[in-house]
Amino acid sequence: MALPHLPDSRAAAAALDAHDPLASFRDRFHLPAGVIYLDGNSLGPLPRVARQRLARVIEAEWGDGLIRSWNAAGWIELPQRIGDKLARLIGAQPGEVVVADSTSINLFKVLAGALALRPDRRCIVSERDNFPTDLYIAQGLIELFGNSHTLRLVEADEVCDAIGEDTAVVMLTHVNYRTGRMHDMVSITRHAHACGALAIWDLAHSVGAVPVDLNEAQADFAIGCGYKYLNGGPGAPAFIFVAQRHQADFRQPLAGWLGHAQPFAFEASYRPAQGVARALCGTPPILSLAALECGVDIALEAPMTAVRAKSLALTDLFIALVEQRCAPYGLRLVTPREHDRRGSQVCFAHPDAFPIMQALIARGVIGDFRAPDILRFGFAPLYVRYTDVWDAAHILAEVLSSRVWDRPEFRQRAKVT
Amino acid sequence: MALPHLPDSRAAAAALDAHDPLASFRDRFHLPAGVIYLDGNSLGPLPRVARQRLARVIEAEWGDGLIRSWNAAGWIELPQRIGDKLARLIGAQPGEVVVADSTSINLFKVLAGALALRPDRRCIVSERDNFPTDLYIAQGLIELFGNSHTLRLVEADEVCDAIGEDTAVVMLTHVNYRTGRMHDMVSITRHAHACGALAIWDLAHSVGAVPVDLNEAQADFAIGCGYKYLNGGPGAPAFIFVAQRHQADFRQPLAGWLGHAQPFAFEASYRPAQGVARALCGTPPILSLAALECGVDIALEAPMTAVRAKSLALTDLFIALVEQRCAPYGLRLVTPREHDRRGSQVCFAHPDAFPIMQALIARGVIGDFRAPDILRFGFAPLYVRYTDVWDAAHILAEVLSSRVWDRPEFRQRAKVT
Repeated sequence: MALPHLPDSRAAAAALDAHDPLASFRDRFHLPAGVIYLDGNSLGPLPRVARQRLARVIEAEWGDGLIRSWNAAGWIELPQRIGDKLARLIGAQPGEVVVADSTSINLFKVLAGALALRPDRRCIVSERDNFPTDLYIAQGLIELFGNSHTLRLVEADEVCDAIGEDTAVVMLTHVNYRTGRMHDMVSITRHAHACGALAIWDLAHSVGAVPVDLNEAQADFAIGCGYKYLNGGPGAPAFIFVAQRHQADFRQPLAGWLGHAQPFAFEASYRPAQGVARALCGTPPILSLAALECGVDIALEAPMTAVRAKSLALTDLFIALVEQRCAPYGLRLVTPREHDRRGSQVCFAHPDAFPIMQALIARGVIGDFRAPDILRFGFAPLYVRYTDVWDAAHILAEVLSSRVWDRPEFRQRAKVT
Repeated sequence: MALPHLPDSRAAAAALDAHDPLASFRDRFHLPAGVIYLDGNSLGPLPRVARQRLARVIEAEWGDGLIRSWNAAGWIELPQRIGDKLARLIGAQPGEVVVADSTSINLFKVLAGALALRPDRRCIVSERDNFPTDLYIAQGLIELFGNSHTLRLVEADEVCDAIGEDTAVVMLTHVNYRTGRMHDMVSITRHAHACGALAIWDLAHSVGAVPVDLNEAQADFAIGCGYKYLNGGPGAPAFIFVAQRHQADFRQPLAGWLGHAQPFAFEASYRPAQGVARALCGTPPILSLAALECGVDIALEAPMTAVRAKSLALTDLFIALVEQRCAPYGLRLVTPREHDRRGSQVCFAHPDAFPIMQALIARGVIGDFRAPDILRFGFAPLYVRYTDVWDAAHILAEVLSSRVWDRPEFRQRAKVT
C-alpha cells in the first residue's frame, strides 16, 4: 500500500484523516476529551465493547452463573480461543498460540523449554538494550541452573555475529521498547538456525502494530503482551507461541494443572497436554481475559497492510514535523528512519526528557518517558489521527520553546515513571 | 465461641439464622435466586461492591485515566496494599505478603527459593493427596534441576515421620481440597524446623474460612488463592508470604521487572527489591486485582472467631443431617469429624458421585464433584445459612432416594468437572 504524501498544513492532515481507511476504528475506543494519546504502546485505550462484555462477565457469568460458567460461559476455552485469534495476527496456525500469565513468565517457560532442546549448548544471546524483564528472566533461570549457562549481550546490529556453536537460543524483542528499532526476524532466525540455535521472539511492541509472520520466519517460540497495541486492558494476560514442530518435545517447568493432559482427573503425576496447551499453568484471571478478547477482536478486523501503511505515515509525519519545528532544542532522533527497521513509535533523546514529558502530559499529549533520556511516542493506527500528530508536534514545540518544562513541578518523580 | 446446639427442625435452623452474628454479610454478595451455593471453595460469589469498583476501574481509571492510573489510581500499589490486608487474615505482618500471579506460579517461586536456602538437602516431602498442581509444580522444578532432587509423597498422617535429615522442604496444603482434612500447622512446622527443614503452606482452602496464624506457627513460606473463600472473582490473582526472617536471603527465579529494586530505572541486571516485593514478576491484571480487593475487604470485617464457629456448626449440621437422612444410600463421610482436623467443607464418597452431583446441581444445590468419587460441599460462613444446610441435605436425600441421578443426562461430562 502506497503511503500518502506528508501533509504540509493542518488542513492537509485533516484531509488525510477524512480519507483514512482505518478512520472508523477510532470510534471503537473510549478516548478521553482533551487528550492526544501517544502511549498505546504502554496501555491501549478501552474498547467500547469491553464495557458490555465486562458487565456480562461480572453480572451474568460470575454473579449468576457462578462456578457453572467455566463450562456454560466457556471460561475454560478462553486461553485457547483467544490464542487462536491471536495466531491470525502473528502468522501462526490455530493450536500454536495460547493466552496465559504475563510476558515475563511466558518467557521463562519458552526459554527453559528451548534450552532443554539444546542441552549441549550453554549460551543465550540477546540485545544489551532488550526490555529489562527479558534479561532478568534469563538471569533468574541461569542463577537457578547454578550458572551453568551464560547470557551474552550485544548491540542490536551485532546479534548475528554473536551467534556461535555454543549458542542455544537467540532471544530478542522484535521492536525495541526504547528506540523503536525493529529487527529483521526472518534473517536473524535463519542465521540462528544455520548455527544450530533456536529463536525466541518477544512481540510486545509488535503485535497489533506491525506485520508479524512467525511461521514465514520459522520462529521457534514467541511471547507477547496483551495490554499494548492489542488494547486488552491494564495488565492483560500475555501469550505464548510454540511452533507446531516443537510442541511434542516442548517441556516447560511451570507445570501447573491447566497444562496437564487431564486437569480434572487430578492425577498425582504431571502429564503435559497435547499441543500448546502444555504452556498453561494456573487458573487464568477471567475478567482480564475477557477484556483482552475485546481488544483482539478489533485488531482482527483491521487489515494489517492498512495498519502498517498508516503507522509509517504517522511516524514519518511526526519525525518530519518535530525536526522542522523543534530543531533548536536539542532533540536527537533515536528511532530508525528506514521503514523496514521501524516499529510504530518515535523516540527522541533529550537530557531533560523527564520534565519535558511531564509538561507535555500536562498539556494533554500523553507519551512516555523511558530512562535515562528518552521521549517515547507510540502511534496506534486504529485511533491516532494525522491531526493528532500535527497537534502533538505543535504542542511539543511550544513546550520546548517556552521552557515551561523547567518548572519544579515537572521534575517530581512518581512511582511509575 | 461456643457452637450452637444443632437444630432439629427447619424452624430451629431458621432461628439460628435469625441470631447469626454474621447474618448481615449475606447481603454483601450477589447470590442468584433458586441456588444453594456450596461451592464457594471453588469460586466465591460476586461481592455487590465489586460492581461499582469494577465500573470505576473500567470507566474512570482505564477509560479516562489511561496510563496515568498506574500512579493516580494507585494501580502500582495494589499488590502490596492487598497483600498487607491479606496479612491480617493469616497472621502475618505488613510487608510479608504480596499479591501476584497464580497459586501454582507462586509455589514455584517459594519452592525454588526454599530449596536454595537448603542447598545440601535433596528431598521435598508432601502429601500424596495434595492438590495436584502443587505436586506438578514440584515435579516441574525437579525436572528442571535434572532430577537432582526427589519428591517424597506420603499419607496425610505420615508427614512428620517422613521428614528426615535430607528433607529440604515440607510442602503441604493446610486443608485438603478433596477431604477437607486440616493439618496441624504448628506442630508440623515445628517438627520440620527441628529436622532442619523449611515449611511451605498452601492456604488455598484455608484463607477466609479457618483461622490461620503463620507467624505463630513460624511458617517459612505460604501461598494461597484469591477466588475461593476470599471471593475475589474467577481466576483472581493469588498471594505469597515470605517470613520476614527469610526475605533478605530469598531469591526466586521468576525475576521479572516488577520484583526489581527499581523497575523504572530499566537497569540491565536484576537486583531484587527489598522485602516481599521481590516475589513480584510481571505486570498484574488490574481488573482482576481490583475485584480481589473487594472480597478481601469483606473478609477483614468478619471476626474469625465467629467465622470459625459458624463454619463448624454448619459442617456439623450437614454431616448430622446427611447421616440421618441418607443412611441407606451408601455415602461414606471422608471429612474428619474432629473439629481441629476439619476445614470448612464436607465431603462424602460415593461410586456415583459424578451423576449425583449433576442431579443436585440441576435441583439448585451447587457443590463439586472431585474425581474419582467425591461429593464436595463447601460452607462459606459469610453467606451460607443454617436453613441452606437444612434444605441442601433434604434435597440430597430426595435425589438419592428417587435415583433421579441415574438418568443419562447426568452422566455427561463437560470439560470442567
